[in-house]
Amino acid sequence: MNMIDTQLKDFCQKNTIQNQQLNMARGNPCQEQLDLSNELLTCVNKMNCITRDGVDVRNYGGIDGINEAKDLFSKYMDVNVTEIIVAGNSSLNLMYNALALALIQGTTNGPGWLSQGAIKFLCPTPGYDRHFSLCESLGIQMIAVPLNEDGPDMDIVENLVKSDHLIKGIWCVPKYSNPTGICYSDETINRLAFMDTAAGDFRIFCDNAYAVHHLGNKGTQIANLLEACKLASNPERAYLFGSTSKLTFPGAGVAMVAASEKNISYFRKQLGFQTIGPDKINQLRHVNFFQDIDGLMTHANLHANILRKKFDVILDVFDQYLSSGNLASWRRPDGGYFISVNLLPGCAKKVVDLAKTFGLTLTPAGATFPYGYDAEDRNIRIAPSSLTVEDAKLASEILCKCIVSVSSSVHPNLHN
Amino acid sequence: MNMIDTQLKDFCQKNTIQNQQLNMARGNPCQEQLDLSNELLTCVNKMNCITRDGVDVRNYGGIDGINEAKDLFSKYMDVNVTEIIVAGNSSLNLMYNALALALIQGTTNGPGWLSQGAIKFLCPTPGYDRHFSLCESLGIQMIAVPLNEDGPDMDIVENLVKSDHLIKGIWCVPKYSNPTGICYSDETINRLAFMDTAAGDFRIFCDNAYAVHHLGNKGTQIANLLEACKLASNPERAYLFGSTSKLTFPGAGVAMVAASEKNISYFRKQLGFQTIGPDKINQLRHVNFFQDIDGLMTHANLHANILRKKFDVILDVFDQYLSSGNLASWRRPDGGYFISVNLLPGCAKKVVDLAKTFGLTLTPAGATFPYGYDAEDRNIRIAPSSLTVEDAKLASEILCKCIVSVSSSVHPNLHN
Repeated sequence: MNMIDTQLKDFCQKNTIQNQQLNMARGNPCQEQLDLSNELLTCVNKMNCITRDGVDVRNYGGIDGINEAKDLFSKYMDVNVTEIIVAGNSSLNLMYNALALALIQGTTNGPGWLSQGAIKFLCPTPGYDRHFSLCESLGIQMIAVPLNEDGPDMDIVENLVKSDHLIKGIWCVPKYSNPTGICYSDETINRLAFMDTAAGDFRIFCDNAYAVHHLGNKGTQIANLLEACKLASNPERAYLFGSTSKLTFPGAGVAMVAASEKNISYFRKQLGFQTIGPDKINQLRHVNFFQDIDGLMTHANLHANILRKKFDVILDVFDQYLSSGNLASWRRPDGGYFISVNLLPGCAKKVVDLAKTFGLTLTPAGATFPYGYDAEDRNIRIAPSSLTVEDAKLASEILCKCIVSVSSSVHPNLHN
Repeated sequence: MNMIDTQLKDFCQKNTIQNQQLNMARGNPCQEQLDLSNELLTCVNKMNCITRDGVDVRNYGGIDGINEAKDLFSKYMDVNVTEIIVAGNSSLNLMYNALALALIQGTTNGPGWLSQGAIKFLCPTPGYDRHFSLCESLGIQMIAVPLNEDGPDMDIVENLVKSDHLIKGIWCVPKYSNPTGICYSDETINRLAFMDTAAGDFRIFCDNAYAVHHLGNKGTQIANLLEACKLASNPERAYLFGSTSKLTFPGAGVAMVAASEKNISYFRKQLGFQTIGPDKINQLRHVNFFQDIDGLMTHANLHANILRKKFDVILDVFDQYLSSGNLASWRRPDGGYFISVNLLPGCAKKVVDLAKTFGLTLTPAGATFPYGYDAEDRNIRIAPSSLTVEDAKLASEILCKCIVSVSSSVHPNLHN
């Protein structure tokens, strides 16, 4: 054990975290956040289980959601009420559904993707590991493209999509991207909407997971992708997915997909074969709980107040331990759930492994890249939400010490 | 308007149902049934949202359901606790998932069905329209086989599956079949389990929708298909689907799939790519509400008490109006949600249309057959549940008068 590791061990022992589990791996909200929504559990009862249209939410029916939920969440997603389906508890499941539908039955402007050959998706990296594992599980080939400060590198994207009709889509998290926290510029949004694609049935899978999940005092506004696609005469190009997983209960929120009326009509028809309807009681709970979009925004602020402290303490520790050298680079996100840290080449896996020995669990190194392959082994993703402020401080101190230790070991000639 | 229709019109006017809507089309539980489960709405609150294993059901995780739900519903489905996944609110959606998975990625013993050619399913008829529309939407060819009093005609089934490797599955509702209400005999179950299939990846899609939905004083017991498949050394052959849609709330129940451990392990892995987990709060609600399998069975009896009266009044009207002639044949079901009536050839569509003009909506004629095609135009499905006992009587009287009217018109030489 080298000197730095000995110091780290001493530090952990002093802070009595030996055998304690600190977890920065997943963006699970903490209990304090969950408690913000407890009223949701009981806000629909036998006295108020009928919608404004007279629908008993306990019974069958209503394939695309109750009208009051469509009203509320169309504002949340910034689309028309005719451009949304409010569904079950998982937006990831809606993404899967949209992919499975396209693969088997096709889209509004093309036959089943499986019948067209070995199709591919563009994956801006670093990105969300579950987008990538979903593609991998479905046999969709992934092509990594760099994610810059203003979105995917559009020169590369445009060049790829214009010549290969088997490139059928791109994953995008345009607002507070997972994990870097960047927001797409208006120019990026427009180029995505207007670019020439060899595939007539090209789709942007836009995960709007952090629509109102700001950390600053006011949220960042970004251009409306669906509107841009309409302006570009590519109205069918954008699928927008969202949920309340990080606003109410991650396991029992409400998810939604927004798209052009033509796409929504296609989804609605196909959904009608696949289910008799979503859990309308839970939709009504959410409407009763939030009341309206202002209530939802106010609620989002309560989450931001809890999360901001954790992000601040971690970023302060990073500044304190890592700013003087060139061991790591990161950015202070304006929203979202993650901090992305780039280390020196060859260090990410070793840092994650070392941290684990000190009781700190991180997202596996490489997870933010397709096939889990980070060619430079540099990127790690930090998820602050589930820890207390005190544990977030401790965890980030351990992480920084691990970074210092591994960096000096992998790059022994480095002058920090 | 002939004499019978004039009498019918007079009858409707006397009973003031002109412009009133009577609906026997779908098996929606009535309000009295929904009210049986109102406690479910509020039985999980901020004080009891942690499982026995310490899982906070509000947060992410638990891909295959909470352990207490797996315990309860494995008893309900008569399988081991390792042979079940408890999921969201829709068993139809689980059937779709299993089909989409098999089509795209394949099964535990074969590659993706789409890669193998134009695959086919056997459809015992009359059967459940949503099974058929699901197949049709996915491009799966359907082959109708007769449903007898003891299950599908197994001579025909065995003959078909042994020679065509593109026949990948069969739909079965072995208990209180939709719509005829018959139960499969032990011999049928065993022949399904043991039969030789050309397809090594053949699957029985068994919709166990009416597991405890008896109408008599005690439920019918049928052989266990999963156990039979194990005995036959075809353990992967059976997928069993179930839900609480007709025990608690149709829109917000809990659905489940049961199968061999190998199949369940495969489903669990693939589900892990498609969602972060089901609504665990709603699962805990169901466990808290039912307490245990005895509680669930007691609750099922409360439903039976409500439903039995409606079935009885309708069957009594049938006896009164139709038993003396040969205009229709039907059976008194021991459970389930439907009564299946066979008319004289060429009469079903006309009866449904005529009933509609008198304010009575029935399931579209032909719906109980693949592609909506009832070659003899004979079968209609009656769904008594959503009506009051009084309306059920009125509706079945209208129906009988329509049957008499149409029969005499289509078959003028008939001596009734």
